[in-house]
Amino acid sequence: MSWGYEAPLASMRRVIDEVLGAPALWAECPAFAELDIDTADAVLQEAARFASEVLQPLNGPGDLAGCVREADGSVKTPPGFRAAYQAFVQGGWPALPCDPAWGGQGLPLLLDAALREMLDACNHGWNMYPDLLHGAYETLKHHGSDALKARYLAKIASGEWLAAMALTEPQAGSDLGQLRTRAEPQADGSLRISGSKIFISGGEHDLTDNIVHLVLCRLPDAPAGTKGLSLALVPKWLPDGSRNAMVCDGIEKKMGIKASATCAMRYEGATGWLVGEANRGLAAMFLMMNSARLHVGLQGLGHQEMAAQNAQRYAEERVQMGKPIAQHPAVRRTLQRLRTYTEAQRVLAYRAALALDLADHHRDEAVRARERRFAALLTPVIKAFCTHHGFHGPAEALGLWGGYGYVHEYGIEQTVRDARIAMIYEGTNQIQAIDLAQRKLLADGGAALTELLDGLQAELGEAAGLRRLFDEARAVLPAWLARCAQGGATLLDTADDLLHALALTLLAWAVARLDAAGGAHTPVFEREGVPEGLMHWSRVRAAL
Amino acid sequence: MSWGYEAPLASMRRVIDEVLGAPALWAECPAFAELDIDTADAVLQEAARFASEVLQPLNGPGDLAGCVREADGSVKTPPGFRAAYQAFVQGGWPALPCDPAWGGQGLPLLLDAALREMLDACNHGWNMYPDLLHGAYETLKHHGSDALKARYLAKIASGEWLAAMALTEPQAGSDLGQLRTRAEPQADGSLRISGSKIFISGGEHDLTDNIVHLVLCRLPDAPAGTKGLSLALVPKWLPDGSRNAMVCDGIEKKMGIKASATCAMRYEGATGWLVGEANRGLAAMFLMMNSARLHVGLQGLGHQEMAAQNAQRYAEERVQMGKPIAQHPAVRRTLQRLRTYTEAQRVLAYRAALALDLADHHRDEAVRARERRFAALLTPVIKAFCTHHGFHGPAEALGLWGGYGYVHEYGIEQTVRDARIAMIYEGTNQIQAIDLAQRKLLADGGAALTELLDGLQAELGEAAGLRRLFDEARAVLPAWLARCAQGGATLLDTADDLLHALALTLLAWAVARLDAAGGAHTPVFEREGVPEGLMHWSRVRAAL
Repeated sequence: MSWGYEAPLASMRRVIDEVLGAPALWAECPAFAELDIDTADAVLQEAARFASEVLQPLNGPGDLAGCVREADGSVKTPPGFRAAYQAFVQGGWPALPCDPAWGGQGLPLLLDAALREMLDACNHGWNMYPDLLHGAYETLKHHGSDALKARYLAKIASGEWLAAMALTEPQAGSDLGQLRTRAEPQADGSLRISGSKIFISGGEHDLTDNIVHLVLCRLPDAPAGTKGLSLALVPKWLPDGSRNAMVCDGIEKKMGIKASATCAMRYEGATGWLVGEANRGLAAMFLMMNSARLHVGLQGLGHQEMAAQNAQRYAEERVQMGKPIAQHPAVRRTLQRLRTYTEAQRVLAYRAALALDLADHHRDEAVRARERRFAALLTPVIKAFCTHHGFHGPAEALGLWGGYGYVHEYGIEQTVRDARIAMIYEGTNQIQAIDLAQRKLLADGGAALTELLDGLQAELGEAAGLRRLFDEARAVLPAWLARCAQGGATLLDTADDLLHALALTLLAWAVARLDAAGGAHTPVFEREGVPEGLMHWSRVRAAL
Repeated sequence: MSWGYEAPLASMRRVIDEVLGAPALWAECPAFAELDIDTADAVLQEAARFASEVLQPLNGPGDLAGCVREADGSVKTPPGFRAAYQAFVQGGWPALPCDPAWGGQGLPLLLDAALREMLDACNHGWNMYPDLLHGAYETLKHHGSDALKARYLAKIASGEWLAAMALTEPQAGSDLGQLRTRAEPQADGSLRISGSKIFISGGEHDLTDNIVHLVLCRLPDAPAGTKGLSLALVPKWLPDGSRNAMVCDGIEKKMGIKASATCAMRYEGATGWLVGEANRGLAAMFLMMNSARLHVGLQGLGHQEMAAQNAQRYAEERVQMGKPIAQHPAVRRTLQRLRTYTEAQRVLAYRAALALDLADHHRDEAVRARERRFAALLTPVIKAFCTHHGFHGPAEALGLWGGYGYVHEYGIEQTVRDARIAMIYEGTNQIQAIDLAQRKLLADGGAALTELLDGLQAELGEAAGLRRLFDEARAVLPAWLARCAQGGATLLDTADDLLHALALTLLAWAVARLDAAGGAHTPVFEREGVPEGLMHWSRVRAAL
């Protein structure tokens, strides 16, 4: 009955190969033309071993030990974390989706998504450190000067140096326009950075020798608001070997991911360099927003998988009233719902990763453009929906353990605590809902969504309940668009329900596809997901 | 923006006086004939002062400090807990609803419910210690021998000695029939108790000089299963001043209520005395089940009130995008829903407390019998529904704080962690749902529920959405009863949805009554609660 992780490799292969048909699409992408499903599977098997054998055993102890900040501002991660990270780097895992030109392995983001799902399932706290690498890599690769790239990009791609994103300040949460950190240009072309940041994940730690901060800041005379933000690269150790003028002032006592150091940072005239154009810092960061938000959605997916499989094992072994509790109807229903929701979300999240791959690499520009639209549309849905269920799924599963579920050593309570943050960071789930409504639906009059629904509906089959959600989507959307186009409060009033309604509609497609690949999810989804989806659609309707 | 508690005294008075009309009913109860609303209000004002000024400041520090078990098995509660408990006893609070014959104040359970809501809101961990007193008092009062009552009852009523309920064993969670702790009769009429128990709240601590355990155990040759369970009183210190043979083997590391010592206890031939008849231990404990489950429901209510009022204050002060976040539509909706759900659940929970009072004290036997039926019916609904929302309400509210919500010092994350246990203990919420379906609905063919709905519907007014839930209840119930009477899996398959559907239907009445007393809850409930209620009814329907 002990907590553990068996990577869902069969489900991953089913989703990648049979449901999404990725291998045939890789063949259309010159960068992935050599890749086949068996090679992909072998990569994931190796990743599964690392996640379950190295990371998972460190998860519970890491939560109890937490991070410790010393008087000099240095931060100690829990025992075993540094060695695990060194093994991760030696295995080449940080570089999985990076460009071979910078030392990467050039594999699809789709495989990187499966890797991340496993890392997050086994040790969300540990994975907070490398999770930021890819975003930093993309930002620097696309916006960094040649000099900065030469000095930092390969070290970041390999994971030899870790990175931190320094955005938030005490007075500015979701409202980045209020940021105040200053950057003063120096004669040698560098910047002097001064200001305080909070909630900087991995701002300070002992996993790597250097830490590269990407800091949102303001140049002198910059316009007010978000249009005056610039991005600076600020390393902990400068190229000349001296320590930069930045210090960790404190780390937060948090509900979960206690092994991840959430730092308050003070930059006291620290030396940095501009990344991208002056006053265009936010644009540089938004470039990596889709993949960063997908990564957070994958955390939610990983937590659900962890809860689902451990609940299943526990329920099969725990006997009450003369039989394993897995045979009690209420328990069986909970287990079925967890499994169906988890696997269907895997389909959606991996579909978004595939869209990012195709948007960059497909040989046909029309496909690239279409997949860019789909990726943009799916991203907020996956971030919000998978993290919502990433918390609520495990929170419900906890009850299957009875009183043991509330006790640390059984594992599930930590998953619940760790999972809650994913609903908040990288843009709160309410921000995702507004992004979906405003920038992904209203902005193009629903064109991308209609295009997506048309494509999916052809594959949906005849299950009546599932069709009802698609019919509802097509019935409500034009009225919703018309009403929102008039302005007023409708968009903000309906955004949350619209996101969940749409997510459950897309999930209906995922469930149908899984069943076509040999699953048995439709009955569960018709009982659980369809009424919930209809409830959200009916709330949207009621507001029109 | 700091976390704190302002007792909802105006709402409590509105519910007690205007919505429930309690004062007129007290006049029909000889025991409460002298009580009026102003006296009741004065008692609650005093309780509010204790809760907010003494208990609330100890809550966060108590969570961080937790309990510490020393090598000798003794347990230290967090700093300040013992002094607060002594003040509580000196204030006479434990004895509020106890019989004046045993040193009690003889006040209604309705006022005790309001007291408990405040204690739980401010410090759930601390309140775990006295929360068990009333159950122990009732059990001993109704089932104890005169000798036991003379020795223990007044000390328990006053709170001078605390009590613990020792039920659970490692192999037996919800399945009490598997309990194995042995009791061997001795020549002097005492029992020798041997066995191990887990999850014993307050089994050991430093708040009082003695701790009185009520232990479920088996006499020699007792029948197997629950019909062979007896109840024994086992004190930490024996009447002759010697230490009893019982020891705390360990305390659990838990998700929340860390200030409450959850003990593993070992009884090694400890001396005890039978309470009630041999092999009738479960019946003795079930007597106090209604009030104990109501108390757990009040924990859920307290957590929602704490979350709702702190979220409101924070949202009015926190400015983002140029205005307080309370003015952003999604935030405003969350705040309105929290307030509506919280106040409506207060109506339901207090109605159940009133039913317990009337069942015991109303001068008319017909009223007493009716209120016994209502109390039995409402109890599982309130336990499960109020604790479900007691967790999910704060868990959603946490998001309003953004990243701060995840940080300990802001308070809300502790509320979320503390609240989760209430869904599990005192009978899991699935056990409540089965109790409702089987023993409260199927057993009397829905008679008590129909009687309750008839009475409430007359007060409901004309709001269309609210009426829809009542109409749905009346339409679904007969079909559900007929189907369940045939046996099969329907009852267990539908129990959870039925409980939530029914709870939301009753909430519709509470909302209508609150609005009649000057509230503005109906629009929120029609948007949020009615679609949710209809979804649960539709799931029940679909299973028939």
